[in-house]
Amino acid sequence: MNRVSIIMGSVSDLETVGEAINILKEFKIPFEAKVLSAHRTPKELIKYIEQAPKKGTKVFIAAAGMSAALAGVVAAHTILPVIGIPMETKSLKGLDSLLSTVQMPAGIPVASMSIGKAGARNAGIFAAEILGISDKKIGGKLLAYKKVMRIKIKNTKIKL
Amino acid sequence: MNRVSIIMGSVSDLETVGEAINILKEFKIPFEAKVLSAHRTPKELIKYIEQAPKKGTKVFIAAAGMSAALAGVVAAHTILPVIGIPMETKSLKGLDSLLSTVQMPAGIPVASMSIGKAGARNAGIFAAEILGISDKKIGGKLLAYKKVMRIKIKNTKIKL
Amino acid sequence: MNRVSIIMGSVSDLETVGEAINILKEFKIPFEAKVLSAHRTPKELIKYIEQAPKKGTKVFIAAAGMSAALAGVVAAHTILPVIGIPMETKSLKGLDSLLSTVQMPAGIPVASMSIGKAGARNAGIFAAEILGISDKKIGGKLLAYKKVMRIKIKNTKIKL
Amino acid sequence: MNRVSIIMGSVSDLETVGEAINILKEFKIPFEAKVLSAHRTPKELIKYIEQAPKKGTKVFIAAAGMSAALAGVVAAHTILPVIGIPMETKSLKGLDSLLSTVQMPAGIPVASMSIGKAGARNAGIFAAEILGISDKKIGGKLLAYKKVMRIKIKNTKIKL
Amino acid sequence: MNRVSIIMGSVSDLETVGEAINILKEFKIPFEAKVLSAHRTPKELIKYIEQAPKKGTKVFIAAAGMSAALAGVVAAHTILPVIGIPMETKSLKGLDSLLSTVQMPAGIPVASMSIGKAGARNAGIFAAEILGISDKKIGGKLLAYKKVMRIKIKNTKIKL
Amino acid sequence: MNRVSIIMGSVSDLETVGEAINILKEFKIPFEAKVLSAHRTPKELIKYIEQAPKKGTKVFIAAAGMSAALAGVVAAHTILPVIGIPMETKSLKGLDSLLSTVQMPAGIPVASMSIGKAGARNAGIFAAEILGISDKKIGGKLLAYKKVMRIKIKNTKIKL
Amino acid sequence: MNRVSIIMGSVSDLETVGEAINILKEFKIPFEAKVLSAHRTPKELIKYIEQAPKKGTKVFIAAAGMSAALAGVVAAHTILPVIGIPMETKSLKGLDSLLSTVQMPAGIPVASMSIGKAGARNAGIFAAEILGISDKKIGGKLLAYKKVMRIKIKNTKIKL
Amino acid sequence: MNRVSIIMGSVSDLETVGEAINILKEFKIPFEAKVLSAHRTPKELIKYIEQAPKKGTKVFIAAAGMSAALAGVVAAHTILPVIGIPMETKSLKGLDSLLSTVQMPAGIPVASMSIGKAGARNAGIFAAEILGISDKKIGGKLLAYKKVMRIKIKNTKIKL
Repeated sequence: MNRVSIIMGSVSDLETVGEAINILKEFKIPFEAKVLSAHRTPKELIKYIEQAPKKGTKVFIAAAGMSAALAGVVAAHTILPVIGIPMETKSLKGLDSLLSTVQMPAGIPVASMSIGKAGARNAGIFAAEILGISDKKIGGKLLAYKKVMRIKIKNTKIKL
Repeated sequence: MNRVSIIMGSVSDLETVGEAINILKEFKIPFEAKVLSAHRTPKELIKYIEQAPKKGTKVFIAAAGMSAALAGVVAAHTILPVIGIPMETKSLKGLDSLLSTVQMPAGIPVASMSIGKAGARNAGIFAAEILGISDKKIGGKLLAYKKVMRIKIKNTKIKL
Repeated sequence: MNRVSIIMGSVSDLETVGEAINILKEFKIPFEAKVLSAHRTPKELIKYIEQAPKKGTKVFIAAAGMSAALAGVVAAHTILPVIGIPMETKSLKGLDSLLSTVQMPAGIPVASMSIGKAGARNAGIFAAEILGISDKKIGGKLLAYKKVMRIKIKNTKIKL
Repeated sequence: MNRVSIIMGSVSDLETVGEAINILKEFKIPFEAKVLSAHRTPKELIKYIEQAPKKGTKVFIAAAGMSAALAGVVAAHTILPVIGIPMETKSLKGLDSLLSTVQMPAGIPVASMSIGKAGARNAGIFAAEILGISDKKIGGKLLAYKKVMRIKIKNTKIKL
Repeated sequence: MNRVSIIMGSVSDLETVGEAINILKEFKIPFEAKVLSAHRTPKELIKYIEQAPKKGTKVFIAAAGMSAALAGVVAAHTILPVIGIPMETKSLKGLDSLLSTVQMPAGIPVASMSIGKAGARNAGIFAAEILGISDKKIGGKLLAYKKVMRIKIKNTKIKL
Repeated sequence: MNRVSIIMGSVSDLETVGEAINILKEFKIPFEAKVLSAHRTPKELIKYIEQAPKKGTKVFIAAAGMSAALAGVVAAHTILPVIGIPMETKSLKGLDSLLSTVQMPAGIPVASMSIGKAGARNAGIFAAEILGISDKKIGGKLLAYKKVMRIKIKNTKIKL
Repeated sequence: MNRVSIIMGSVSDLETVGEAINILKEFKIPFEAKVLSAHRTPKELIKYIEQAPKKGTKVFIAAAGMSAALAGVVAAHTILPVIGIPMETKSLKGLDSLLSTVQMPAGIPVASMSIGKAGARNAGIFAAEILGISDKKIGGKLLAYKKVMRIKIKNTKIKL
Repeated sequence: MNRVSIIMGSVSDLETVGEAINILKEFKIPFEAKVLSAHRTPKELIKYIEQAPKKGTKVFIAAAGMSAALAGVVAAHTILPVIGIPMETKSLKGLDSLLSTVQMPAGIPVASMSIGKAGARNAGIFAAEILGISDKKIGGKLLAYKKVMRIKIKNTKIKL
């Protein structure tokens, strides 16, 4: 059974979204990844959002750029938590994606991560944190992941 | 028969959108105005967009603020021209609405006007310009409207 | 037992954070609200974060303004999901709070909501969405909340 | 007979504007493309705008960068719809072009597209949408274009 | 004979432009002030720019807001120096006016002052500086003006 | 005799400032170019500003980046017109230089050009426009320069 | 003997700078406060900076708005630490002051505080921190000040 | 004995921070450089901050990017002066780091330098300026450093 549904607005987002996918794989969290656009395949998107819970989805991750309506549209059709990844863009460097993703009006929340790859990795971790509330195995992996980060930094030697 | 469909994301947008409405009234262009939200009434919105052409709609005007997905979602469901009005917002003063409205990805255009009331008035005029291409009466009213603006400025006396 | 821990950087944030509190009350989700600052009470903050899970906390909400380190610092000390509310600020209108809250480096996610009161209300709803994954009662309330929003908009009549 | 007049402020804009041209060619919409500057050839520009309707022009597309006065100046001299393409710029990445293009004062609308190539492609599509209101052939092509986009996304397979 | 021509895009700009006017009056520099818009009275504007030198104009001051094309359009039709005053605006606080005024493409310079009243006062002084190059009386007044500013500051007593 | 004094904050600005120099050479306007910094050689800078008029300087051009105090400091020590060129910068792309150059407080004007090379070229032209008021030869060259720009654009053929 | 020299660009900055003054008074650190402008009284400013060390000054605090050259100019004439307070401004809300203050080129540091009153208060505290390195009494007061802030927050009761 | 403690959020910051290190080496100021993160090693960071004074630290330098909480967290745990270096970032070019570093709330100052390498170099110099108050040798080196900068500029010859 699926637990996380990742939706990206364009196949070109995959390189960035790969950071989220790697985390889910590392944490052995089953997921599904789809290219679906709020603007180009609005009906397929809605259909997908509505069926996802039946396939086990507990959390959505939505990645889109520019006028990034995707995460908000997903949130409009579900009561599951939606995590948004604002894609870096060519001209405005992701400021457009960020404001479109994060500035949701009252009533329909989207949980925005940071712009680009850092945000994508964090989307994977945040999905794990949500699932980890009731799944001790994931909780354990999160603790281990934090520990590895900590040890890596502690062992860093600077050559001056 | 309706010719313009105005959609606003919240009833609080009406004061701003009133500028567009006044223009359409002044130009005697039949229109319909609805409150419908891309985030709070997504299905009613899609239904409305799909039925509007049957009631005569040739042009959509969509006004929304913050993560302003409305105009883009309208554009996703129609091949009619969609004019977007980015609403002024409390914290970011409409920069969020503007970028969400104007920065549409390739394939699904939205015609963004300026932020707030000036943009709303221009949305009404731009709808008239589109309809005026094949409707000489509207064309005549646009010419008259421009002339009045011109004369008003020409007759302005500055007291120094 | 507590389920959500709300931390705000200053008592002056309470008016904004009240929007989150109202949602949690409305949804009958037990919570605790504390004033604790990443900069002024760093040790009390860490102590609070570490003890919160023992009192039942499953989700943190952190509200702070300007150089808003609070949500990130909470996230540094927990593997529970942390929701950030960027406070509107006097000079930069919350752009500083937003970037400080949302632009978390890879590894330590914070789920940023929109700036100010809309973001605070959404923080409450998003916390409910997370808890609603495994709590059907909350899920039911979320569905009802969405329905009320939808009906309110559908019943809006515009006087032209 | 011409139906769309494309004006660009500099020959260096052609690479970007080419996206609009490709759409018009694909849709078999007759057009004319000219280099004319609001700042460097103001009189030739005005003359061109005024004569264009006689040659069949129904819609203007204007592309310019930096202090992008072009679209606004075109709009000042016509009652036909004017679509603006804000060019990406070297230092401010098109934010200057965008604000100059979109922030038109009340009375003289310009329909701004997004910055750069995406905006140029959308300018072509938006011109087609305007003409498609009264030209069923173009309407059919727009439907087909949307369908192709939709199918392309639906057929996208992600390799994980 | 006139020496400075002040053009403002709207009569509502007069309160701000008054700062420039006061300087010119104080320095006894003859000037003319007109409301003329690049967008609403483009032909009257061009006519005015072309005739101004015959009435003695040596320097233009142009004040406009939002997509502030005015100063650039003046510069397009003259080889006299053009000083631009970006007006403060309701939503973007003058950032739109500033970028539209200052970001002129190579070949057609506009001398941008700061946003709003400070910029308007400086426009008056800068016009005086230009005229002061060959007019010793104005030069003397500029020296006196600077001296008064200096003395005012030197005599400021702070009560602690 | 010198007529324009060009000051740049760092020798690395020379590539950009070269655009202004080329214009002055082309217009045969005698000038002097110096590297002097408001922050690193404040006293040499003041000395240079004060002596420049004796060597014939009628106009200053000041180019600086980041916290670009140079043009403002020049303006503080002279009643001659000061033209500022905001340099493009590595991180903020010249937005810092632009705001530091253009946002002068009331009383001490700086005439800001656009960011980078376009602004540098315009600084040269604007200096010529100031000098051209009383020097018919320069006026003639400005007319010729404008004409060449116009003809170049008029002769541009677009290959579609 | 003086230990801190506070310079503000305009007497209107006093209300903001008062926050720094209150801290210095509270910590019993002798200081002097002067109105001196980098643009309007450049020579008096330099003279003051050069004489201040003789009167005991160990730290400068400089407050200015818009194109805020003041702190940088102070830093150019001293090897003592210079703390900058970017003033909130009418149009750009202090973003101009902030970038002018903080974006100093390599070689001449300015220590920028936050915009407006919070920054002014912090300027006072930071000056105390510098002096506290070698003055145990000030160090003790800083510890006490931090403690009071901590206790105030700890004692805050939230009424829900 | 150590006098300056440099903390960077990630080993990838070392290239930038190297500019500060070079200054401290050049000025023969003993220092220690550590990689420690406010988000990934919060406890090790606090422990380090608290022990640093015992090893001689008088000044902290903290370099971090994105939501740059590091300098603020250091400042929360010490009464020694903390200098912040906002790192340049991939998408927002350091604007996020700058606002996170500089916009500290009242009570806990951080002295922000400019973004990136210029800021890092200035952090080293500013630390020297603080130490130079009571250490004449460092004062002498600062004077010499300023002199070298001055002479370098004075000796710059521009080839035209």
